[in-house]
Amino acid sequence: IRSGSPEVIYCEGKSLEHIRGIVRHMLDYKEENIMATRAGRDVFEAIRDVTDEAVYYDKARIAVIKRKEIQKIPGGIAVVTAGSADIPVAEEAAVTAEVLGNSVERIYDVGVAGIHRLFARLDQIRKANVIIAVAGMEGALASVLGGLVDKPLIAVPTSVGYGSSFHGLSALLTMLNSCAAGIGVVNIDNGFGAAYLANNINRINRKGYGEHE
Amino acid sequence: IRSGSPEVIYCEGKSLEHIRGIVRHMLDYKEENIMATRAGRDVFEAIRDVTDEAVYYDKARIAVIKRKEIQKIPGGIAVVTAGSADIPVAEEAAVTAEVLGNSVERIYDVGVAGIHRLFARLDQIRKANVIIAVAGMEGALASVLGGLVDKPLIAVPTSVGYGSSFHGLSALLTMLNSCAAGIGVVNIDNGFGAAYLANNINRINRKGYGEHE
Amino acid sequence: IRSGSPEVIYCEGKSLEHIRGIVRHMLDYKEENIMATRAGRDVFEAIRDVTDEAVYYDKARIAVIKRKEIQKIPGGIAVVTAGSADIPVAEEAAVTAEVLGNSVERIYDVGVAGIHRLFARLDQIRKANVIIAVAGMEGALASVLGGLVDKPLIAVPTSVGYGSSFHGLSALLTMLNSCAAGIGVVNIDNGFGAAYLANNINRINRKGYGEHE
Amino acid sequence: IRSGSPEVIYCEGKSLEHIRGIVRHMLDYKEENIMATRAGRDVFEAIRDVTDEAVYYDKARIAVIKRKEIQKIPGGIAVVTAGSADIPVAEEAAVTAEVLGNSVERIYDVGVAGIHRLFARLDQIRKANVIIAVAGMEGALASVLGGLVDKPLIAVPTSVGYGSSFHGLSALLTMLNSCAAGIGVVNIDNGFGAAYLANNINRINRKGYGEHE
Amino acid sequence: IRSGSPEVIYCEGKSLEHIRGIVRHMLDYKEENIMATRAGRDVFEAIRDVTDEAVYYDKARIAVIKRKEIQKIPGGIAVVTAGSADIPVAEEAAVTAEVLGNSVERIYDVGVAGIHRLFARLDQIRKANVIIAVAGMEGALASVLGGLVDKPLIAVPTSVGYGSSFHGLSALLTMLNSCAAGIGVVNIDNGFGAAYLANNINRINRKGYGEHE
Amino acid sequence: IRSGSPEVIYCEGKSLEHIRGIVRHMLDYKEENIMATRAGRDVFEAIRDVTDEAVYYDKARIAVIKRKEIQKIPGGIAVVTAGSADIPVAEEAAVTAEVLGNSVERIYDVGVAGIHRLFARLDQIRKANVIIAVAGMEGALASVLGGLVDKPLIAVPTSVGYGSSFHGLSALLTMLNSCAAGIGVVNIDNGFGAAYLANNINRINRKGYGEHE
Amino acid sequence: IRSGSPEVIYCEGKSLEHIRGIVRHMLDYKEENIMATRAGRDVFEAIRDVTDEAVYYDKARIAVIKRKEIQKIPGGIAVVTAGSADIPVAEEAAVTAEVLGNSVERIYDVGVAGIHRLFARLDQIRKANVIIAVAGMEGALASVLGGLVDKPLIAVPTSVGYGSSFHGLSALLTMLNSCAAGIGVVNIDNGFGAAYLANNINRINRKGYGEHE
Amino acid sequence: IRSGSPEVIYCEGKSLEHIRGIVRHMLDYKEENIMATRAGRDVFEAIRDVTDEAVYYDKARIAVIKRKEIQKIPGGIAVVTAGSADIPVAEEAAVTAEVLGNSVERIYDVGVAGIHRLFARLDQIRKANVIIAVAGMEGALASVLGGLVDKPLIAVPTSVGYGSSFHGLSALLTMLNSCAAGIGVVNIDNGFGAAYLANNINRINRKGYGEHE
Ligand SMILES: Nc1ncnc2c1ncn2[C@@H]1O[C@H](COP(=O)(O)O)[C@@H](O)[C@H]1O
Ligand SMILES: Nc1ncnc2c1ncn2[C@@H]1O[C@H](COP(=O)(O)O)[C@@H](O)[C@H]1O
Ligand SMILES: Nc1ncnc2c1ncn2[C@@H]1O[C@H](COP(=O)(O)O)[C@@H](O)[C@H]1O
Ligand SMILES: Nc1ncnc2c1ncn2[C@@H]1O[C@H](COP(=O)(O)O)[C@@H](O)[C@H]1O
Ligand SMILES: [Mg+2]
Ligand SMILES: [Mg+2]
Ligand SMILES: [Mg+2]
Ligand SMILES: [Mg+2]
Ligand SMILES: [Mg+2]
Ligand SMILES: [Mg+2]
Ligand SMILES: [Mg+2]
Ligand SMILES: [Mg+2]
Repeated sequence: IRSGSPEVIYCEGKSLEHIRGIVRHMLDYKEENIMATRAGRDVFEAIRDVTDEAVYYDKARIAVIKRKEIQKIPGGIAVVTAGSADIPVAEEAAVTAEVLGNSVERIYDVGVAGIHRLFARLDQIRKANVIIAVAGMEGALASVLGGLVDKPLIAVPTSVGYGSSFHGLSALLTMLNSCAAGIGVVNIDNGFGAAYLANNINRINRKGYGEHE
Repeated sequence: IRSGSPEVIYCEGKSLEHIRGIVRHMLDYKEENIMATRAGRDVFEAIRDVTDEAVYYDKARIAVIKRKEIQKIPGGIAVVTAGSADIPVAEEAAVTAEVLGNSVERIYDVGVAGIHRLFARLDQIRKANVIIAVAGMEGALASVLGGLVDKPLIAVPTSVGYGSSFHGLSALLTMLNSCAAGIGVVNIDNGFGAAYLANNINRINRKGYGEHE
Repeated sequence: IRSGSPEVIYCEGKSLEHIRGIVRHMLDYKEENIMATRAGRDVFEAIRDVTDEAVYYDKARIAVIKRKEIQKIPGGIAVVTAGSADIPVAEEAAVTAEVLGNSVERIYDVGVAGIHRLFARLDQIRKANVIIAVAGMEGALASVLGGLVDKPLIAVPTSVGYGSSFHGLSALLTMLNSCAAGIGVVNIDNGFGAAYLANNINRINRKGYGEHE
Repeated sequence: IRSGSPEVIYCEGKSLEHIRGIVRHMLDYKEENIMATRAGRDVFEAIRDVTDEAVYYDKARIAVIKRKEIQKIPGGIAVVTAGSADIPVAEEAAVTAEVLGNSVERIYDVGVAGIHRLFARLDQIRKANVIIAVAGMEGALASVLGGLVDKPLIAVPTSVGYGSSFHGLSALLTMLNSCAAGIGVVNIDNGFGAAYLANNINRINRKGYGEHE
Repeated sequence: IRSGSPEVIYCEGKSLEHIRGIVRHMLDYKEENIMATRAGRDVFEAIRDVTDEAVYYDKARIAVIKRKEIQKIPGGIAVVTAGSADIPVAEEAAVTAEVLGNSVERIYDVGVAGIHRLFARLDQIRKANVIIAVAGMEGALASVLGGLVDKPLIAVPTSVGYGSSFHGLSALLTMLNSCAAGIGVVNIDNGFGAAYLANNINRINRKGYGEHE
Repeated sequence: IRSGSPEVIYCEGKSLEHIRGIVRHMLDYKEENIMATRAGRDVFEAIRDVTDEAVYYDKARIAVIKRKEIQKIPGGIAVVTAGSADIPVAEEAAVTAEVLGNSVERIYDVGVAGIHRLFARLDQIRKANVIIAVAGMEGALASVLGGLVDKPLIAVPTSVGYGSSFHGLSALLTMLNSCAAGIGVVNIDNGFGAAYLANNINRINRKGYGEHE
Repeated sequence: IRSGSPEVIYCEGKSLEHIRGIVRHMLDYKEENIMATRAGRDVFEAIRDVTDEAVYYDKARIAVIKRKEIQKIPGGIAVVTAGSADIPVAEEAAVTAEVLGNSVERIYDVGVAGIHRLFARLDQIRKANVIIAVAGMEGALASVLGGLVDKPLIAVPTSVGYGSSFHGLSALLTMLNSCAAGIGVVNIDNGFGAAYLANNINRINRKGYGEHE
Repeated sequence: IRSGSPEVIYCEGKSLEHIRGIVRHMLDYKEENIMATRAGRDVFEAIRDVTDEAVYYDKARIAVIKRKEIQKIPGGIAVVTAGSADIPVAEEAAVTAEVLGNSVERIYDVGVAGIHRLFARLDQIRKANVIIAVAGMEGALASVLGGLVDKPLIAVPTSVGYGSSFHGLSALLTMLNSCAAGIGVVNIDNGFGAAYLANNINRINRKGYGEHE
């Protein structure tokens, strides 16, 4: 992890006791900002037992302990979703990107079944440096966007859907097989990973952020 | 099979000898038109040994023995493909639909990676009574079309692609999970079945075609 | 969506608060009928907080807010199930089709393990313009029906079954590979989509229903 | 293997040299009849190099060296196929059953897409002691037969089909999930195993055939 | 269903109200014995609301309403399990077979990891007319038994196991691919179906049981 | 496609005749460079029938017709492979990236089974702007690299391997589930797509390359 | 089971009543130590109802009733995990190995995303006789370790992960396809089996432990 | 790789030219023995172009260039197969183990369908230090052996089989889910890897073989 970037705790399946311990240790021995992902409200409250500074983003299920000012870098990231059910994953991406210092544009619920909604927002999307497309069910949003923009496009399949969506497999395969070239795919529901990659892309050749340990 | 509709021979895996036998039998005991699908040029030539009347559609890999005039019904069927590699499956659908008495519009190579090409043909597509969308790789064409038209839409996944397209599985799942409602999906590469269903749709309430035996 | 057709809310995974908000917005800004699918009784009650007009179809898990008279179109849709466990999916299809203006015949529990029950209802089925076959486990109903009727046939695999039914995969594959041609398949348990397609089929060439936006 | 039952060689993947060696050894050290399955014509000819007695069943791809009279047992086995492409697997079953001493009725090409053909043969099927149903694609024949007969029913899925038939998986799942109870399923294309089980069923409580070693 | 055989209610997913209704109807209009499978104790109690005659087999999760004497047929069925966790499925098979009039030998917990336990019971197993092998995890019991007996062998894979047992898929594939010929496989956990097939096998050529409707 | 970027022909499954036609058309009506991917030597020779200018990269299976000088952009792309069998896919990526104007560093055969070889090249890898990791079998290279660098990392699973590698599925899943964050995955063997994405990343905020149509 | 080795009870899915019965029986009729795996605290308490001697290892979810001194053998086993979420599986392995008489080194949370942590512990790992690598998500730890050590390496995939980890399938495939030779893989989450194999390896040629029954 | 162990070339997919180059390089710069696996006779002949010393093991498809005496270690490895079709994989294991310095016992064609053959060889198997079980189809051999021996057991699933064996998947799952504890599984058909692991096991605590780099 680059110096200057936050410490990250993945909370899924960790006990509250364990999480409190990790946070205490980080507060004592590290100086960076801290973010906890896949954190329910109960996790947030456990963190609040340790420190008052924590802020909770409930749609994103992320808690953040801000200890230093986050240094903004120029160039935005557009986070686009097909449906409203994809928003939690999109918010995980958006909040992560912001905590890493990026400006984020949220363009939600513009899936291809009503493609005019997507076209209405296209100018806004094209202004971004990097685009994150979040979609479940059949995940066609990534292909359509890929044909319309020239910027790096990161696709996040979500587990939204039922039956033969097979918990995100359908959207995942769609995105991997897109007829539009130049799409990088991350794991199902992995908003965090998409933002992390987007941040790495956005930081190429930018000075002053620190070096990999 | 409705009386008036052709006899159909599925040639995959049948020996030339066997096919010649079936054709001879049909010529002797039946009066309908005959079509042979999944027929390579060798199959066509085997049929020509039996009768001079056979005509070959090589892109569709269909041979037809026309013995009665095909009665055209009003209302067209649009056959749309994403790529040029999908054309053989599309032709199987188009020729089948024509042999069954339908008018067919071919709109090929208008996949979503270059969505302007699809929009350029949209008026033509919308005039059809039934639409058949043929696509491999990620199969997003069906979803996009589904959002743009109100007509019955039949989706045919093709085995075009490689790697995680898994021989058509990716396009199949895409089409089954489409966020656009009202799409009926047939088997991978099954142009024949799509045309058969389109014909059944197109014939509702039309007189003079005959009855199911 | 065609003008004249209802607004649809897919309730799975949406909070009651969210659903109330959507309904309020639709009541204020739209004029069409409203239907909420995958709606438990709690969803229905949340909608009743907003409006007294809502009616609940519990087997279908659909709530409907009727604001305009639904204009019936001629030509019926037959909804056929293999078992009694398939009825909820069938009801989702049937109620959706009715809300879209179609007449529906329900022919339930006529699966192929007791094929005489299917034959006893065949005349009734054949009178329909479009047939929806709903079946879980091995889904053979669609193949048998496909061989007996000439009308467009839409097959809905259900997740009914256990073990190697793999939550509907077995029925889905059966329906896609049917030896009877002319079957359009929708996603597992997708009664809504089947009805939507059936309605599109039933409306071809009918005047007075409105145009796609 | 019961004494009195033939020696069996599964030839798939064995070299001609190897097969000749096995046959020679069996002729020298064993006294039973010999059958070679999955044997192409080249295998048959290799066996003919060793002994003149071999007879070839080409549809079944079985070679038999008859050294003792096969003792017929009463009670027949019906082998039923859905399509004509399933006949090779059916013949593997039929010839195996005959070599094991059973009478076999062949009822081919009576699949459910034309169910009247199945009904026309039902009396003949019902006379059998054991029924073997052989079907590819969606394999619905087993379910329909299961609802019509009370005899032990063995289902053989075949790899006939394409696309989402996934080389026999579709038919296999159909047969395992049949809504008709009392169906025993064997491996895809395993006509031999079906006949072997049918023979074991047919021999219950019959004297004079020998004992398991 | 053969006359003389019981009416069967599959209770999974049916409401108590629904089950009570079915039982009442059967008591009024049918004369056969009644059995309810996949019945929890709550289902049993619901049935007791309707009739005092019901008896509950809790390991088998089967309730039986005996109205006529069950006519025993000669020839036993051996039900064999690999582990103790497979016993519920085995009991579903055993109780079903008994209600259908068969004698049952239970030979439990003799899996191949301790093969001497299996050999210790082999004489008892060999006396049966039909053998049902019930096993989860890797399901090797069926192969070992298949090599040791000449009787019809029905294999029931169970969902016992974890990880790559994939809810019974591992045992299912093992049983389908057994190197021992003559094994008929039923669905995962389908003790009922195995017993139903075993009964059909056991009844061949036996008089006085009734005819298929 | 950005103006200034080459025309691309995907040759898999296209006839030589077809490819010659496409090339002729592009030479007549377009001005950009032309590259043909998945092109065997026979394809290259077919292109040479049309124009003398074509150059062939045999490891990459790419033919290039250079008509304008390719404008180099600063900032390199490192293409890294695990084994030597992954080189063809890596070369598809490397040559594509070069044709698109990027400088490429090739670091081949540094897979994790001999991790010192990877460390020996790490400085060179870290100098790149974007890294493409190409690996088959278990694909662990991507995870290890992801932990060592901060640059955008694109992972290409290859179909190298056998047995449970399932034609690239194993490497694909590895890369999607990497414990190192910030990896974008493309389809199995899709070197072209990886390079296309890498080029899009490398071009952010660079002037003078042209705009999307 | 070797004499001298403990009796093992696999508690998953067994009732507390059943477990108490098994323990009582073992205490009466056997003399070995007893261990209960997959035992929640409730299971432990049920065992305590029977005997005061039981000790509980909560991270490992194992209860042990020690009745004889465990005879230590020389040569240690290293249990290594990629993440902290893999620790429960690792503890199942570690405690099992200890109960079987082995010395265990625990080296946790040294996954490849921070490979320096693994290198820091390498000397300790290399001192072991046998190494158990426990990892979920993409499971790359096994490959990296395999390239660094010459000792027998047992890999345990865990179900840690989400989305396309498919409950451990991703890690399982990774480990089976490792480019480092000499890795033996056990079932997903099967810490017990890994320790059992490690113990068998560690005991080769060691005297005085007893013989297989 | 341990010093003293041979250089290994995996030949699958490498050109003859390439292999000749690797061998020449190894002869010039290395001193160890050389073995080439997955080597057809054509590969062997290519190697013979470079050196006369090469010896070919055709069943194993391995070529060996022996330059130093192989130092034998005490303690044998038993390689056991279920069928004769598994012998090529077994020979890959056996020859590899021998080249690595181990004594090998071959016990072939003792699969569980004729379990007496396995028992007849059990004493011989039990004398080995490590056992390699090689089986395709359902792979039950590993489970049966696992219950009979206390030595480390390595299971190699093979791709022998058809239909639902799914190219070795069935045997692989069987081996991973074995009810006998203590089995380490390698990739489908990976005889080399099994021998490599067996050698590592056999060498624990033995002096004089060399150290890992
Ligand atoms: N445990 C079971 N597993 C599979 N099928 C069953 C089971 N119990 C009953 N059946 C079948 O289910 C039918 C009754 O289903 P239903 O009409 O839904 O109650 C019976 O005729 C049996 O064929
Ligand atoms: N090796 C490749 N793998 C995947 N996609 C490719 C490859 N080469 C070219 N393409 C894509 O295929 C398109 C051309 O396809 P086509 O029109 O069928 O020749 C290009 O615009 C690329 O997006
Ligand atoms: N955690 C575990 N995972 C897999 N197998 C286990 C586990 N614990 C115990 N076993 C096996 O299960 C057997 C006992 O099973 P049971 O007789 O059902 O209690 C033991 O002999 C072990 O071989
Ligand atoms: N038959 C085989 N199956 C799996 N891996 C093998 C086999 N033969 C050799 N290998 C591995 O492949 C490596 C050599 O690969 P390569 O450098 O591509 O020739 C050896 O060090 C072994 O680890
Ligand atoms: Mg683009
Ligand atoms: Mg539409
Ligand atoms: Mg029909
Ligand atoms: Mg029946
Ligand atoms: Mg047997
Ligand atoms: Mg990194
Ligand atoms: Mg090693
Ligand atoms: Mg053992």
